[in-house]
Amino acid sequence: MTSEVPQELSSLRSSIDNLDAALIHLMAERFKCTQRVGELKARLGLPPADPGRETQQIRRLRGLAEEAQLDPEFAEDLLAFIVGRVVRNHEAIARELS
Amino acid sequence: MTSEVPQELSSLRSSIDNLDAALIHLMAERFKCTQRVGELKARLGLPPADPGRETQQIRRLRGLAEEAQLDPEFAEDLLAFIVGRVVRNHEAIARELS
Repeated sequence: MTSEVPQELSSLRSSIDNLDAALIHLMAERFKCTQRVGELKARLGLPPADPGRETQQIRRLRGLAEEAQLDPEFAEDLLAFIVGRVVRNHEAIARELS
Repeated sequence: MTSEVPQELSSLRSSIDNLDAALIHLMAERFKCTQRVGELKARLGLPPADPGRETQQIRRLRGLAEEAQLDPEFAEDLLAFIVGRVVRNHEAIARELS
């Protein structure tokens, strides 16, 4: 039994590695989109953060997380983590263009 | 021109929403894997965190991020954010089984 367990652990880690590779590519694409949003906002003089949009995103992602049996609190924390970085990027773009 | 810009912003936000839905489903699947890893580790009496494995993951994900033109620092911070939550879950599983 003990010899089977490391194999199962190794198999699970291989799946996690595949999911993480997908995650990195998804995030790369997401930042390409938010980079363009940041450039647009800077051109239009719109503020880097948009609380109304973020409230909508949180509500939607919590709903999707519940359906997918992912902890909605984690989904919200993850979005906050990503959006925090995006807003800092938008602020940097706005400074470069000002 | 001004009337075209909100349309472009709206189109970008729609892409971001699609990517976020994929992200939520990816994370749900990743936590299913790590839940099973946590149960295995608890059964085997292995520690919830595994610094050697994490070092490997960081190196690999930084490499993937560079290829995908994603900031490797962000990739590392994101992994740390996710792994932090996973380790807390593993600790909770170990407490339940002990």
